[in-house]
Amino acid sequence: MKSHMLRFLLAGVVALGLVMATATVRAAPKYQWKLAQTWPTNFPIFGDAVVKMADLVEKMSQGQMKIRIDSKNKHKAPFGVLDMVKGDQYQMGHSASYYWKGKDLNMLPFTTMPFGMTAPEQYAWFYYGGGMELMKKVYDKHSVYAFPGGNTGNQMGGWFQREIKGLDDLKGLKMRIPGFAGEVLSKLGVVVTNIPAGELYTSLDRGTIDALEWVGPSLDVNMGFHKIAPFYYTGWHEPATELLFIVNQKRFDALPEHLQAILTTAMEYAAYDMYARSYHESAVNWAAIKKDYPHIKIRTFPKEVMDQMKAENQKLLADKSATNPLFKEIMDSQAAYTGKVREWTRISDYTYLKGNLE
Amino acid sequence: MKSHMLRFLLAGVVALGLVMATATVRAAPKYQWKLAQTWPTNFPIFGDAVVKMADLVEKMSQGQMKIRIDSKNKHKAPFGVLDMVKGDQYQMGHSASYYWKGKDLNMLPFTTMPFGMTAPEQYAWFYYGGGMELMKKVYDKHSVYAFPGGNTGNQMGGWFQREIKGLDDLKGLKMRIPGFAGEVLSKLGVVVTNIPAGELYTSLDRGTIDALEWVGPSLDVNMGFHKIAPFYYTGWHEPATELLFIVNQKRFDALPEHLQAILTTAMEYAAYDMYARSYHESAVNWAAIKKDYPHIKIRTFPKEVMDQMKAENQKLLADKSATNPLFKEIMDSQAAYTGKVREWTRISDYTYLKGNLE
Repeated sequence: MKSHMLRFLLAGVVALGLVMATATVRAAPKYQWKLAQTWPTNFPIFGDAVVKMADLVEKMSQGQMKIRIDSKNKHKAPFGVLDMVKGDQYQMGHSASYYWKGKDLNMLPFTTMPFGMTAPEQYAWFYYGGGMELMKKVYDKHSVYAFPGGNTGNQMGGWFQREIKGLDDLKGLKMRIPGFAGEVLSKLGVVVTNIPAGELYTSLDRGTIDALEWVGPSLDVNMGFHKIAPFYYTGWHEPATELLFIVNQKRFDALPEHLQAILTTAMEYAAYDMYARSYHESAVNWAAIKKDYPHIKIRTFPKEVMDQMKAENQKLLADKSATNPLFKEIMDSQAAYTGKVREWTRISDYTYLKGNLE
Repeated sequence: MKSHMLRFLLAGVVALGLVMATATVRAAPKYQWKLAQTWPTNFPIFGDAVVKMADLVEKMSQGQMKIRIDSKNKHKAPFGVLDMVKGDQYQMGHSASYYWKGKDLNMLPFTTMPFGMTAPEQYAWFYYGGGMELMKKVYDKHSVYAFPGGNTGNQMGGWFQREIKGLDDLKGLKMRIPGFAGEVLSKLGVVVTNIPAGELYTSLDRGTIDALEWVGPSLDVNMGFHKIAPFYYTGWHEPATELLFIVNQKRFDALPEHLQAILTTAMEYAAYDMYARSYHESAVNWAAIKKDYPHIKIRTFPKEVMDQMKAENQKLLADKSATNPLFKEIMDSQAAYTGKVREWTRISDYTYLKGNLE
């Protein structure tokens, strides 16, 4: 072979090598994932947290990983998110752990618990107090990894047409309040109903129900309940509602390490960020309601009602713990942690706020 | 040329191309940065947040960006971090904004303010209430970008040898309390001194000072103050101390977009994470102090002392605002935001905690 031909071929080798090297970034394996969320399309705050997470993943990975978000309008299974992620129809999901308490009771305590921790207390428990390890134990059985998915902050106790002055006022009261809090209230004689979101306003307006619980000012204001119910009760049942990201374990394990780090950081960042956003929206919306609807009265349930709710809550949890060792382990962890962390809250934020608010 | 020779050469082209393609990842431009922190080597919590940030950046970028952390033991200029980052001796820094109030008063309000916002309130202000925009306005003049750098939570008012029962007990009291809180207390007759960390224990033990302020149980426990002072006062002066990351603007702007996203997310994530960590350490350490030193008494300053501190605080801020329009703009933003957000805190976490603690 002539030497010029060899030079020509070697030049070709180098040129092709460069082309391929340059192409590497673009030709690198793409991870095109799909996420199913429990929420409808364009749902504020909750949905925005998912969009923020997906945007961060795409930006930080230079487009190596992309996540398409399907709302319940598309997949039609708002409470089927866990099954769809487990079955790999979707690689990820965004929902709330307590929605699946019927499927696995041990999922209940990873959202929020009546008379449980506040958001700063609960984040400390999740990340430094053993919460993440317990959540992993529960979700490993379902072949998904679970991560905090955004906090709404303390949820309000609901909108009431009449004031609750004692236990008697709860007997026969028709209220929309889902989940475990509904179980507690039904022990106090409340007639607990579940009504789809789209029919809530009309139901409250026409007296089909006497009261309802939604979220708090951050999301309640769009529903318009303040226009038709004069009593807004402070919360007891969801002091720190944390949403949830779930990821199919095989899919996560197959990601290169840097994408695992990018995805995990993006989820946990978006969760914290949603807490800041919720706090902000609650503050702004509550100020707006107060200004435009000055007749609205903030009320806190009387002590005899609170004491009874606490007692029924404890009884229900003890019953469930008796036959479920893992549930008991989670309850014990939360109770022990709350005992410590609440004493810190007492001498820090609580005493501080008391000095500035009373 | 024989066809088998061509095949051989083409195979070589492909092989070389693959080698080069594989090498691309390693040959990509490296960003080797240096970060100067105000803290000593291995400083818990604060230093750990910096390490977490740097680890995340390295992992998420596949080593394309690495950040070396220099402590004050190395660079010898704990309060020179801003100047060193501005001058590009260091590309990044970790410190606290209020340390530079002597250089630029407008940096004071981005850490925490006496009688100011709690951590959840302040994060809402930073990210959704205009805080980040104001901080950018201040730090643009110094050619660095500024980001939240981790929250200690509510700081304790300090360790006291004697109980403070009224304003008279503050007259002539020798106390170590730095910064703006020291300015306020000196108006109440406190003899404010600054003493290096290493000499604090001995000074308090020997009566050179009567009281001192450090952080809270998360960091105080290592200093041993609980062994020599019986009164632990609740806080008023630093309700949500937020540390600070700063980045040289030219260096940040020169980063590719994905590294800008990775760096920003890693900093803001590490900040939130330090808040959860601080909350946890405070809870655990306070429980340990209470158990081992049951004689320690938690005290809150009496109302006449608090009222006087509030009044002097307002007066000082008004004086500074009168001659500094940007400072006034920041004060007005914080005051307006606190007015709204505190009303939300009142009907959410505060009322909730009251029902569970009183």
